[in-house]
Amino acid sequence: MIVVMERNATKEQVEHMVQRVESLGLKSHVIVGAERTVIAAIGTKRPETRQSLESGPGVAEVVPILAPYKVASREVKPEPTQVRAGSLTVGAGVLGVIAGPCSVENESQIVEAARAVKAAGATALRGGAFKPRTSPYSFQGLKEDGLKMLATARQETGLAIVTEVMSTEDVELVAKYADVLQIGARNMQNYRLLEAVGHTRTAVLLKRGPAATMEELLLAAEYILNEGNSQVMLCERGIRTFEAHTRFTLPLASVPYLHHKTHLPVVVDPSHGTGHTYLIPDMTLASVAAGADGLILEVHPDPEKAMSDGYQSLNFPQFTDLMERCRRVAAAVGKSMA
Amino acid sequence: MIVVMERNATKEQVEHMVQRVESLGLKSHVIVGAERTVIAAIGTKRPETRQSLESGPGVAEVVPILAPYKVASREVKPEPTQVRAGSLTVGAGVLGVIAGPCSVENESQIVEAARAVKAAGATALRGGAFKPRTSPYSFQGLKEDGLKMLATARQETGLAIVTEVMSTEDVELVAKYADVLQIGARNMQNYRLLEAVGHTRTAVLLKRGPAATMEELLLAAEYILNEGNSQVMLCERGIRTFEAHTRFTLPLASVPYLHHKTHLPVVVDPSHGTGHTYLIPDMTLASVAAGADGLILEVHPDPEKAMSDGYQSLNFPQFTDLMERCRRVAAAVGKSMA
Amino acid sequence: MIVVMERNATKEQVEHMVQRVESLGLKSHVIVGAERTVIAAIGTKRPETRQSLESGPGVAEVVPILAPYKVASREVKPEPTQVRAGSLTVGAGVLGVIAGPCSVENESQIVEAARAVKAAGATALRGGAFKPRTSPYSFQGLKEDGLKMLATARQETGLAIVTEVMSTEDVELVAKYADVLQIGARNMQNYRLLEAVGHTRTAVLLKRGPAATMEELLLAAEYILNEGNSQVMLCERGIRTFEAHTRFTLPLASVPYLHHKTHLPVVVDPSHGTGHTYLIPDMTLASVAAGADGLILEVHPDPEKAMSDGYQSLNFPQFTDLMERCRRVAAAVGKSMA
Amino acid sequence: MIVVMERNATKEQVEHMVQRVESLGLKSHVIVGAERTVIAAIGTKRPETRQSLESGPGVAEVVPILAPYKVASREVKPEPTQVRAGSLTVGAGVLGVIAGPCSVENESQIVEAARAVKAAGATALRGGAFKPRTSPYSFQGLKEDGLKMLATARQETGLAIVTEVMSTEDVELVAKYADVLQIGARNMQNYRLLEAVGHTRTAVLLKRGPAATMEELLLAAEYILNEGNSQVMLCERGIRTFEAHTRFTLPLASVPYLHHKTHLPVVVDPSHGTGHTYLIPDMTLASVAAGADGLILEVHPDPEKAMSDGYQSLNFPQFTDLMERCRRVAAAVGKSMA
Repeated sequence: MIVVMERNATKEQVEHMVQRVESLGLKSHVIVGAERTVIAAIGTKRPETRQSLESGPGVAEVVPILAPYKVASREVKPEPTQVRAGSLTVGAGVLGVIAGPCSVENESQIVEAARAVKAAGATALRGGAFKPRTSPYSFQGLKEDGLKMLATARQETGLAIVTEVMSTEDVELVAKYADVLQIGARNMQNYRLLEAVGHTRTAVLLKRGPAATMEELLLAAEYILNEGNSQVMLCERGIRTFEAHTRFTLPLASVPYLHHKTHLPVVVDPSHGTGHTYLIPDMTLASVAAGADGLILEVHPDPEKAMSDGYQSLNFPQFTDLMERCRRVAAAVGKSMA
Repeated sequence: MIVVMERNATKEQVEHMVQRVESLGLKSHVIVGAERTVIAAIGTKRPETRQSLESGPGVAEVVPILAPYKVASREVKPEPTQVRAGSLTVGAGVLGVIAGPCSVENESQIVEAARAVKAAGATALRGGAFKPRTSPYSFQGLKEDGLKMLATARQETGLAIVTEVMSTEDVELVAKYADVLQIGARNMQNYRLLEAVGHTRTAVLLKRGPAATMEELLLAAEYILNEGNSQVMLCERGIRTFEAHTRFTLPLASVPYLHHKTHLPVVVDPSHGTGHTYLIPDMTLASVAAGADGLILEVHPDPEKAMSDGYQSLNFPQFTDLMERCRRVAAAVGKSMA
Repeated sequence: MIVVMERNATKEQVEHMVQRVESLGLKSHVIVGAERTVIAAIGTKRPETRQSLESGPGVAEVVPILAPYKVASREVKPEPTQVRAGSLTVGAGVLGVIAGPCSVENESQIVEAARAVKAAGATALRGGAFKPRTSPYSFQGLKEDGLKMLATARQETGLAIVTEVMSTEDVELVAKYADVLQIGARNMQNYRLLEAVGHTRTAVLLKRGPAATMEELLLAAEYILNEGNSQVMLCERGIRTFEAHTRFTLPLASVPYLHHKTHLPVVVDPSHGTGHTYLIPDMTLASVAAGADGLILEVHPDPEKAMSDGYQSLNFPQFTDLMERCRRVAAAVGKSMA
Repeated sequence: MIVVMERNATKEQVEHMVQRVESLGLKSHVIVGAERTVIAAIGTKRPETRQSLESGPGVAEVVPILAPYKVASREVKPEPTQVRAGSLTVGAGVLGVIAGPCSVENESQIVEAARAVKAAGATALRGGAFKPRTSPYSFQGLKEDGLKMLATARQETGLAIVTEVMSTEDVELVAKYADVLQIGARNMQNYRLLEAVGHTRTAVLLKRGPAATMEELLLAAEYILNEGNSQVMLCERGIRTFEAHTRFTLPLASVPYLHHKTHLPVVVDPSHGTGHTYLIPDMTLASVAAGADGLILEVHPDPEKAMSDGYQSLNFPQFTDLMERCRRVAAAVGKSMA
């Protein structure tokens, strides 16, 4: 950590901060510059240390040098992690494709969708049984009935099931049916929930919150990894910016950035990331070219009649066509696809 | 709702959308403009309706006309709501002041803080027992022990207790000790938690998520109100923007905007909203001048030694001085302050 | 335009607005809904109309229906525009590649760079002679000397020259040397400059401002087109968001969005869009897969010694390798590349 | 500057960077930490230095320690600058109020507005003669005719004139009529224009660009100061964020932040900063309480008929009432107002 003193900091203030650094168990190193003094504080410490130093007298700012995540870091584990959950493989050169409707609406809808996405090349089925909805007046999902329909769809097609868990009290129930527990973007910093899925041995798809930094995303993953569950996939699904022509802004540079910083695989969600059906195909191809390890896409038998997210769902012919184009791009960038 | 057709939409597409609108139980009204056709869809419907129409053939966009929140709306209840919880009154001309440390650290710290903030003019005590922390390696709070210390501080000073609840399974426990349940910014869209506090009859302080729109904030309040708990305060605590010189960007226009749209009182948090002690006093005065109904401020006996948020905490003399200045601004804008 | 009245708007207010709409030369159409009244205002008008109606009594909001740009619109000209400038062809199925150093530093640097990027597959040379710099203490470019060196590089290699013009008084001078006039992101809304380049018959590369909406970008293009210069390329180079791990956030959904709305070709700048050399290759491939019509990339003989932007420049071997990978992705998405 | 090496940086890479630092004329200081090595680079240098070091082998990041602006810095000149231009005084305890219509429309409109705002307490008149407009189809201002009308209004009322200059070629003309040259937000980084107004001895109101950081704003001011014009006022007028319920987000923490970093006075524009008449009064009071040295407000005889910005203009009674409330808040925070 580098403690930058104000230009007019007194000798006493510098001395005070040196003592403060050492009282925290760190070694100090004073550097007197042309315009101001900085104190290097050497040794690893908990995140609080920075904040504690920042409120010291004469301190202009404190610059952290170490990333605050450990287990998720590529510096700690250089080889990429491959997550496997039933029919789904993601990472280390393999591109997994998770597809299906936003919500499970009834058995025939989800089974039909499962068959269609499998035929087109998906390796897992998505479908929401517990739905986090912005408005209390919106459809909230079929809950356990929906989970049972997902299980039927898996039985019929062999596809692994990816479905969201919204609350600690549902973790056990959802884990009974799901191959992958999805943590939604709104719950990325619901730390109790992260710990709860960390206690299971079910794979986790952790979606980035729409205002989360990369560091916050990796620290959220760290909550799960820290409980002993190593099967974590990160998911970029778009951020909130001033842009209003798309539902969210999909910053694909997250993919190479995360590959640089972490060994965990990175899945991209072009459906939520754009919010408009007509933008999804090109952004899916771009995700693959950017190096994504997985894709998660909303596909519905009849988007116009979907109970949620119809405006960002592909129909079966659109998805089938997209999978073909994906295979060409995946081949061009050296990724293997089922 | 206004369904805007594409410029080159066919007669069949328009006809299809008219039928779709009517099949949803709405009346339709076709307006043929100079360059394109729009269809007005009349009648109130669930939020899904919009999405469902948006995926129709030839549709350029669907423009909602009605706000999606109801119970929170000022159009439904024009007179402002005043929230009362023990010593704390907020709203309808009264400015409440909630102050205290970020975390409860030990009994003497919280009792000392309670006495000091009360003496300076605070009408409630804040203090975290359950702490949501970005990193799993940070101090996570004293939990029930912390709640007991808060109860002691209330006994000593008479100040109402405002403290965060992070998970549905803790609601009952926290409500046993707290006068106001705080929903943190990261949990603003944790719908299960919103429903759970909605079931209690304890007042709620709902913090805006750092990427939440005003509409999302009001819909989150609606989740609570909808369960029968009418004692809800909204809290503006800053949003995520490109600005890096402050921890968050504090958009005070939220205060008059919310007063225009809702009857619920609006509290401002200049501590999180700026993230730097030296910016807090001016932004506190600005909050009062903007019309805030309440303030929530971090105050610590010794910020440099705080276990969390020391860099955005005031010490006792700073807080005492600020309260005096606040009283002058409150008087200037016609607000009553204890 | 749709004028949405407030829920409690009086009959007189509605009547007033109807008269106001008609006094502006528009036809009005009143629709009485379940909860409020809206007035459809039919007929095309200047952008001011909206603002003028918005300040009327009892008006909640005014919703525009028509896009404010005309000449740039795909609805007006459905077939894609192809821009040709010397060796550079961009659009309508052809991927152009503009590469070279951020700044022209001396003749041998720019000639060497021109030869290297041409050998690797670039079809135009970039290089700044007039440099807009955030700080007055930074290197400001070689000005006319730099332009002459660019002309030499063109003579040596046959590559078209793309270079920035910063001020109306330089347009004539820069146009004497350049094949493409670049309008930098900071000048996207420098309307005098847009008009001045609109008066030339030299092709223009218009960079998106870091806080510009798509509508503002298209209206900026409209300023140029409106003066009679139809050779306009739009350039996505990243926006300002809360993300700090990249210099800007590169929102590739702009590419398919712009293809949907305008006939103008879309170039992507992964160098400025990411700001870090190690992120550029993957984001370049993603740009191609997203459908970009052109790429603009910073390439320098020795990035560590570059006078500007070294941290986001590729060296020659990196660029050569990237061009090979680009060709594979371009082929996969059906784009032709030199 | 602190050069942070990657965790796995080799001894050779560290050695290389030490030589690089020294070849730039800086002293180096190597600190070997528990997990990685950092190199402190001591001595002041141009901004390029950072970028140059960032592209070195094994470098994780380069952390600047010094602010890049000099003349604008409060560390260089601790006492606040007071700007005086005719009837307008801004800064050092005096609150100036600039008010008037967005555009000069005709002589009687501007003279009437000047009289009304003066009567209510304004100390300068604003009014646009050269108008930067997003759309080429919008009203572009009366140009020199407008300037003459402003001069008439000054003659009639004695109010100083604040008006925008959009292009270098107009600086001389506008300076002939204006007491204060306004640089619009879109031109904040039009460096030629900044230099041109820097060459005059007319006071300058420099508006923050909607995506500009505080550092970029201060560096833009530095361009003007650097040419010898010390009469610069900074203006916060709102930034682009994801918030859509206001036209821009007005981040008032800029006021105390800038007071901390610079001696230049800070003016706030609540009209552009909110974009809705009903939000302006409360945000004006908040600006004063936050410590603003000046206000700039849009006031129009008949906002509904204004040729631009009517939706964010106050009428005369609204402005008169606001000025009275302002005086009370100014008094409460110890500011002097005419």
